[in-house]
Amino acid sequence: METNSKYPLYSIGVDLGGTNTVYALVDTQGNILKCDSFPTATPTVEEWADILSAGILQMTNSIKRDNISGIGIGAPCANAITGCIEAATDLPWPSPIPLAVMIESRTGMKTVITNDANAAAIGEMTYGAAIGLTNFIVLTLGTGVGAGVVVDGHLLSGRSGFAGELGHVTFPFAADRDCGCGRKGCLQTVASAKGIRTTTKRMLESSALESELRGLDDDDLTPKAVEDAAMKGDEIAKSVYQFTGRCLGSAASEFAAFTDPEAIILFGGVAKAGELLLEPMKQEFDRCALHLYKSRVKFMCSMLKDADAAILGAASLTMMKK
Amino acid sequence: METNSKYPLYSIGVDLGGTNTVYALVDTQGNILKCDSFPTATPTVEEWADILSAGILQMTNSIKRDNISGIGIGAPCANAITGCIEAATDLPWPSPIPLAVMIESRTGMKTVITNDANAAAIGEMTYGAAIGLTNFIVLTLGTGVGAGVVVDGHLLSGRSGFAGELGHVTFPFAADRDCGCGRKGCLQTVASAKGIRTTTKRMLESSALESELRGLDDDDLTPKAVEDAAMKGDEIAKSVYQFTGRCLGSAASEFAAFTDPEAIILFGGVAKAGELLLEPMKQEFDRCALHLYKSRVKFMCSMLKDADAAILGAASLTMMKK
Repeated sequence: METNSKYPLYSIGVDLGGTNTVYALVDTQGNILKCDSFPTATPTVEEWADILSAGILQMTNSIKRDNISGIGIGAPCANAITGCIEAATDLPWPSPIPLAVMIESRTGMKTVITNDANAAAIGEMTYGAAIGLTNFIVLTLGTGVGAGVVVDGHLLSGRSGFAGELGHVTFPFAADRDCGCGRKGCLQTVASAKGIRTTTKRMLESSALESELRGLDDDDLTPKAVEDAAMKGDEIAKSVYQFTGRCLGSAASEFAAFTDPEAIILFGGVAKAGELLLEPMKQEFDRCALHLYKSRVKFMCSMLKDADAAILGAASLTMMKK
Repeated sequence: METNSKYPLYSIGVDLGGTNTVYALVDTQGNILKCDSFPTATPTVEEWADILSAGILQMTNSIKRDNISGIGIGAPCANAITGCIEAATDLPWPSPIPLAVMIESRTGMKTVITNDANAAAIGEMTYGAAIGLTNFIVLTLGTGVGAGVVVDGHLLSGRSGFAGELGHVTFPFAADRDCGCGRKGCLQTVASAKGIRTTTKRMLESSALESELRGLDDDDLTPKAVEDAAMKGDEIAKSVYQFTGRCLGSAASEFAAFTDPEAIILFGGVAKAGELLLEPMKQEFDRCALHLYKSRVKFMCSMLKDADAAILGAASLTMMKK
């Protein structure tokens, strides 16, 4: 491992998930050189910080400190401005958590944090589908729906780091769906894993068509199950992704008026459906959008591998800021 | 006039309007030192450029060139990136017009252009209601509805300079209104001068209440006439601004999810109604917004004087970029 350069050659990326914490040593080309993980659910966040910091120090003990740009952490409800996790419902500890300071004080390495969707956007910009783009939106379609919005090369943060909460923009197509935020109509109620399940159940109820999705438990009615069925020609399953894609296209036509993007990139479990989702999305966008944006926005799915995306995005945080 | 400094002390602001072109010499404190104007409707844009350039050269003939940062022009459909006016329907000449190059070649002064709404946003940030703010949206409510969106201190431009077309975001409250863009439901169909007229006519038709607005010609049914009537207690007129304010509040609650703003600032003819508009806007915003933004956004009207706002915003363009 070359460590003679005067400049940072490596950084640490951390993905703090509800189940596991994954951390990795990454080089400036986006190669994951070493990777390790441990269960997130420690009794206290201090213990979690101790385990992570010890792991990082061991992972980097053969590298000069000057060659490491720092530690980047992607986490739910992470506020990039304060360095704190705020009001996270998916983590086992009380919020707010001064995460950046906790890790920086234990490792002596500069530590920055950002929320999952922003990490994904940075990952795409640095190593993925958005290389060379300066105006794009990454929509993360998973348990919830989030967004990282890059305009003029800058990832939007906003007053308190809460820019890009596009999963909570409301639309008529979701007007009858309740969101976990207490409101109705949020994009998240349609384009998340739970949204896919709700749409599937509704379509199964209102149709007499045969479908391999009939009789599946809620837990088994995953985006993957619906996608697999659609790929085999299941009409209900295909309709679910048609509908979801059209909703995303309609939503994207409004988002375009905000930031005039070159591309909108889908990321996360629901986005695995690829063309099943992209084709109706593109059609509906071009039908709905203002003439200034029509036919000028590219729609694509993330090109980063599952496990790597969050890590790479987080790792690139400190490389960008050095 | 002090002209011995090594640094720019002055700039030129130009407001290219459909009727008149106003240009002024402005100092770094935002004082308008000299101002002149001429009718925009010259036979060709070359003649217009000749008149403007001659006027600017005369206006600045006692000032060292090094002390002038340049010329900033606010104009409809101006693309800040290309320096061209694109597809402007309010100007007497065919588009596109390479405006920045035309003025720069005639004056020898660095010239930048931007659209009206962006000029207003920069004006507010530099001299107006947004001093000290780094996250805000200026909504210009005039013949059309536009927006200048500032996030993290940066005015959003987007891929082709068409970020912030918030007048063309669509909403259920306008679903039955046709927009000049060929679509339905745009915010502009409610919050523009024409929107106020449409709302007033609809309310007059569906109500038996007495109103001083009854019988007015379309040309006389201006935002100012409705505002004056409302201030005198006219119930229909008050309802018009109540409705318009609630629509703006609902729209703003969606906009907040995009950029997490500190403030939303209203500007232009319709915004003259002040509290008539701000109070219902604020109430509806706090009713509709995601908890992250509720009660955290300030709503205000522009504090810049009518004629000065566009000029100051345009003038500050080159000061920002020096």
